[in-house]
Amino acid sequence: MADLSALLSPQSVAIVGASPDVSVLRGRTLRVIRRHPYRGRLYPISRSHSEVQGLKAYPSVADVPERIDLAVLIIPAQAVPEELERCGRAGVKAALILASGFAEESGEGRELQQQIREIAARHGLIVCGPNTEGFANTAAALCPTFSPAMDELPSGLVPEWRTSGRVAVIAQSGGMGFAFFDRGRPKEIAFSYVVTTGNEACLEGFEVVEHLLDEGRTDVFLMFLENIKNAATFRRVAARALSAGKPIIVAKIGASEAGRRAAISHTAALAGEHVVYRAMFRRYAIVEGTDSEAMVDIANAFAVYRDRLPRGKRVGIGTASGGGGGWLADACVAAGLEVPELDAETRAKIDTHLPPYGTSQNPVDGTAQAIRQIGYSELARLIASSDRIDAVIMVVTARNTETFERERANLFAVARETRKPILMWSYTNPIPAAVKLLSEAGYPLFTNMHTCARAIAAMADYATRQRAQMAQVEDMQVRTGHPPLPVAIGSRPLCEYESLRVLKALGIDSCRAELVATADEAVRVAGDIGAAVALKIQSPDILHKSDLGGVELNLADAGTVRQAFDAIGRKARAARPTADVHGLLVQAMAPAGLEMIVGMRRDDVFGPMIMVGMGGIHAEVVRDVALAPAPLSVSQALELLGELRGSALLGGMRGQPPADTQALAQLIARLSELAVEHADSIEVIDLNPVIVHEAGRGVSVVDALIVPRCAGNDVTK
Amino acid sequence: MADLSALLSPQSVAIVGASPDVSVLRGRTLRVIRRHPYRGRLYPISRSHSEVQGLKAYPSVADVPERIDLAVLIIPAQAVPEELERCGRAGVKAALILASGFAEESGEGRELQQQIREIAARHGLIVCGPNTEGFANTAAALCPTFSPAMDELPSGLVPEWRTSGRVAVIAQSGGMGFAFFDRGRPKEIAFSYVVTTGNEACLEGFEVVEHLLDEGRTDVFLMFLENIKNAATFRRVAARALSAGKPIIVAKIGASEAGRRAAISHTAALAGEHVVYRAMFRRYAIVEGTDSEAMVDIANAFAVYRDRLPRGKRVGIGTASGGGGGWLADACVAAGLEVPELDAETRAKIDTHLPPYGTSQNPVDGTAQAIRQIGYSELARLIASSDRIDAVIMVVTARNTETFERERANLFAVARETRKPILMWSYTNPIPAAVKLLSEAGYPLFTNMHTCARAIAAMADYATRQRAQMAQVEDMQVRTGHPPLPVAIGSRPLCEYESLRVLKALGIDSCRAELVATADEAVRVAGDIGAAVALKIQSPDILHKSDLGGVELNLADAGTVRQAFDAIGRKARAARPTADVHGLLVQAMAPAGLEMIVGMRRDDVFGPMIMVGMGGIHAEVVRDVALAPAPLSVSQALELLGELRGSALLGGMRGQPPADTQALAQLIARLSELAVEHADSIEVIDLNPVIVHEAGRGVSVVDALIVPRCAGNDVTK
Repeated sequence: MADLSALLSPQSVAIVGASPDVSVLRGRTLRVIRRHPYRGRLYPISRSHSEVQGLKAYPSVADVPERIDLAVLIIPAQAVPEELERCGRAGVKAALILASGFAEESGEGRELQQQIREIAARHGLIVCGPNTEGFANTAAALCPTFSPAMDELPSGLVPEWRTSGRVAVIAQSGGMGFAFFDRGRPKEIAFSYVVTTGNEACLEGFEVVEHLLDEGRTDVFLMFLENIKNAATFRRVAARALSAGKPIIVAKIGASEAGRRAAISHTAALAGEHVVYRAMFRRYAIVEGTDSEAMVDIANAFAVYRDRLPRGKRVGIGTASGGGGGWLADACVAAGLEVPELDAETRAKIDTHLPPYGTSQNPVDGTAQAIRQIGYSELARLIASSDRIDAVIMVVTARNTETFERERANLFAVARETRKPILMWSYTNPIPAAVKLLSEAGYPLFTNMHTCARAIAAMADYATRQRAQMAQVEDMQVRTGHPPLPVAIGSRPLCEYESLRVLKALGIDSCRAELVATADEAVRVAGDIGAAVALKIQSPDILHKSDLGGVELNLADAGTVRQAFDAIGRKARAARPTADVHGLLVQAMAPAGLEMIVGMRRDDVFGPMIMVGMGGIHAEVVRDVALAPAPLSVSQALELLGELRGSALLGGMRGQPPADTQALAQLIARLSELAVEHADSIEVIDLNPVIVHEAGRGVSVVDALIVPRCAGNDVTK
Repeated sequence: MADLSALLSPQSVAIVGASPDVSVLRGRTLRVIRRHPYRGRLYPISRSHSEVQGLKAYPSVADVPERIDLAVLIIPAQAVPEELERCGRAGVKAALILASGFAEESGEGRELQQQIREIAARHGLIVCGPNTEGFANTAAALCPTFSPAMDELPSGLVPEWRTSGRVAVIAQSGGMGFAFFDRGRPKEIAFSYVVTTGNEACLEGFEVVEHLLDEGRTDVFLMFLENIKNAATFRRVAARALSAGKPIIVAKIGASEAGRRAAISHTAALAGEHVVYRAMFRRYAIVEGTDSEAMVDIANAFAVYRDRLPRGKRVGIGTASGGGGGWLADACVAAGLEVPELDAETRAKIDTHLPPYGTSQNPVDGTAQAIRQIGYSELARLIASSDRIDAVIMVVTARNTETFERERANLFAVARETRKPILMWSYTNPIPAAVKLLSEAGYPLFTNMHTCARAIAAMADYATRQRAQMAQVEDMQVRTGHPPLPVAIGSRPLCEYESLRVLKALGIDSCRAELVATADEAVRVAGDIGAAVALKIQSPDILHKSDLGGVELNLADAGTVRQAFDAIGRKARAARPTADVHGLLVQAMAPAGLEMIVGMRRDDVFGPMIMVGMGGIHAEVVRDVALAPAPLSVSQALELLGELRGSALLGGMRGQPPADTQALAQLIARLSELAVEHADSIEVIDLNPVIVHEAGRGVSVVDALIVPRCAGNDVTK
């Protein structure tokens, strides 16, 4: 992986296009840089001025008396390729292209962006942008950006007292990227970097993450993504971050059609399907963020308690406001947390401090009186001491520091000594002095109770997933060396009978079935089966057989089989006279069980994704499906099934015996191997339905379809 | 309804227990009052001081030289009854009891609270509390409270420039009540009142709302509820507020078990089931709030645009940050809004101002360039001019006022002239000057994009419901004069055959059925029916018939009927030897259709609630039920059905014909009349399942149970 030091930690910076006029971006960028005590060398490049904002200017990067690490380009898009070429020749190592007007425009812009890629490759230039708003490296005090967020800061780039727990922002959108800083800095969060990557013609967000993992000065990552271009980079970096216990919190736009539209027009990012991104994030324990305020707050909680993540979801609440405690309890439960009653021993300890109108049950209503006597910190310590509790939230009012000043020493001591996260929610607007005091003491302070609850849920989930997935996070070794498939995957969809043969080769059995060409054969096969059968037309030109009357079910005797054979033939000829019909499949009716859907489809970025869902009426009312990248182990398949709302049905609701979930998971795992091994040739696999019988009796694949990866295959026909 | 002027707008106030020591609540309350320019007379009442904080003090309310409007009691709980009695005798009109230690404690506290009720009633005293934190009347500049939120204000009680759009807070919790003010005042919201009602021994929140509706100085209500004690007051006041177009935004705690626990211990409020509250809120178009920040923001939007509510849910987004626009679009769609592409005409108008890398599709990415040229306000005006748009959100950065100052005049003009709400979302922390400028211009400013989207959704919903429900909001006239029920509702549950008779009397038919005593009779009746039948045991002691083997289905001939008759008898005798068995019901099997559940249960506060739900497997996986207070008109029943996730099934999914939704709605409406007419005698009605046949073919009630309202009826047996 490329070292990005020349870009992010340069010793010398040329600002190409620098202007004395600070009302334009070309002037403002230099001004912003100079507002901070960057210790490297700065070289304004200007054709019209020999001095810019008090610095000696040079007509070209080639004229600068030293080799430049970073060139910041703030010039019209059309002039960028030529300038970049000049930088390459002059030995510049990295370029930051602040200009807009590239791939986010159609036509010429795309052309320019392609040129940038070629020039960068030719000279080995690290290129960030175009259409970025620049970055900030707080340790180097270097902020090559025109973002107002870095221009007039009421305080230093990082809180001085904060020596660990640094957060980096990596964002495709400049506005959103620096907004994380703008929102987080007043909360006393220490940002290591803000890097905005714009159109990502060359450098992508996850490459920046990787560099920062190498560098080791960042503990939590906040990302704003419009898309992911390189799945391999994403997988590698996400896995590394998880192994290192450095959480990534992501906002991914494009959940809606309008959001996708915006992403395309904005940074030319073709956002894929959101459900696929969700599945990828889940695989690597990436936390999905909802908005910038919540994201910085959750990042802050991770930054503070990263080495003391909660071991479960049981929250103790301490409060002086009974109403606030109850409201927060509701919010905790809504976020998937539990608020259990405390144990008798802990309650007895707390009760000695409470007036009769307080309560120690949980929420612990200490009342104003107990808070005055023992302080928030001591109450928090008492609650945290219960073994029924994994984390604590204190309901406070941080509109003044009076109370906190009184218990200052103990606030620090409790935060230092606790093994469980203690978070604070202020139901009033916190004043800066209170934010500083509580943050410095070691408590993440929240103003939104839902975010506070979600932070604990996210930390608990992260800890669980980290433990469980550490072993599995590197892509599984795919079992290869399977014998060649019995049916070649060519350019046309496989019929059900062919698809079933492919599955059989993988050890996935289905109901007894045979392809027949005549009614007599059909009757004979049905007789051999000796029970009710289904008859189904088999043609690569008729994928949705039922819709055309190509399926007849529950045929119990020779007469009905013969009748059905004729009827199907008639209907198929009428609807699709030119269809290539391979014959009819006579298939034993599957025994009863739970209808499920299992499938695979290739995602353009992430490759084969495995999909499972509840079948039948349930599937049509509630879109109850779960998705994960292939391959999947059996235990991962079980986990995936657990994500379904209807998963309880597998356990045997309604007095039914439990279903053979194990067999279903095995089928999913095998299918995922097929998907990975033939990722280049298969586009879609649909097993719909799969009947899951009761435990020990396996599953029946009742219909199957395999569509090769090939232009022109329209699965809708 | 009582006039609360003596409480909320008194001419003279006695502070009983006032102290010179401002570090205790008794001293702080007087200090807070005196921080504001209240023009009435203040009388400290103190046994130990003749002067308190510079004011002449009196030993008792009886010694004050004029008749007191309001006495504020800050004395120990035990002393309250005696003091209240003294107030009553002295002709005091209202009392505010700030003391704690009443019903929120067990035992003695409850006793004290009962005494307060009696004394208040005897003297006709208006009593607010106990366990309240007091109130604030901003117009009178009267703040009898010890809340820190009213103590040191950085600015006046209300923004001076704000002449309309006032918000009142009514909260059971003092901390939460004043927190709304604390959060909302910096957003330049004008609060008319903050009233915290504590334990509500006498005065309830909705009575305060009613007084403020009478008074007419409040436009939006923010409420924090732990419970509702008086359903009639709630219904009357909620209906009045809706008629007046004055929205109520409510936080109701107790959605979780832990929240309910907190409410009980806090203000002795037995919180009912949250789903019932939800149903009641929906009936009166009350907006449910999620947290105080979101609630003040939504109240602000209503306050500003209350006379220009959006006519639909189509949002236009204008932005200079492509990333921000896309993210907000996702948030809008998640909130149930639409973000449609703009029409060609509007796009053409906008395009003349955009650089080639901007886009007018929607989100309209004006880019920094267009914003610089025409300003946020002009872009908003252009977007609002599209007839595809009902409301506009502008994505802004309010971290300085530069841009806004430049377009100041147009900002004011556009807000004044628009007929559609224009909201602003700042993705950076807004500075106070920007908040003031934008608020004064007429734009609700949001920092959370989800809240911004939800505000538009809430306004659009409110407008729709107001239009649709105005006619229905007063409780429907219940049709009475039905003939007496054919089966008396006594003290025991009615068997299915009896329940079906009751339904028949209301015009609700079910499948042909007859009660029989012998196997011969059963065979005869089955023969008369001439199709497959069900046999079901009928006993008030066996409510869950299937669980005991008391039901046999699909009996097609005499032999199986006879066999089933014997089997059911055997099993029932074995399981419940002493059961009072009325016989067996022979019932025609219902034709196919969609399984639904319809029922009624009495809520202790709100009376009969009608419940509908999807039946079968769907119901068990997804708890898909909807609830509404009885009575329901047919159109209200249709609306209720529409709330079900599975409602699409009624429309005829999976190639099924549409179901007879009309017949189902009629059944629901009739059932709701039964529920209201016999509200005093029926506790539960369960029709499970109701089979809904295809349109025009009606419904079949396949099982029915009516449980009278009577101690000891255990529906679980």
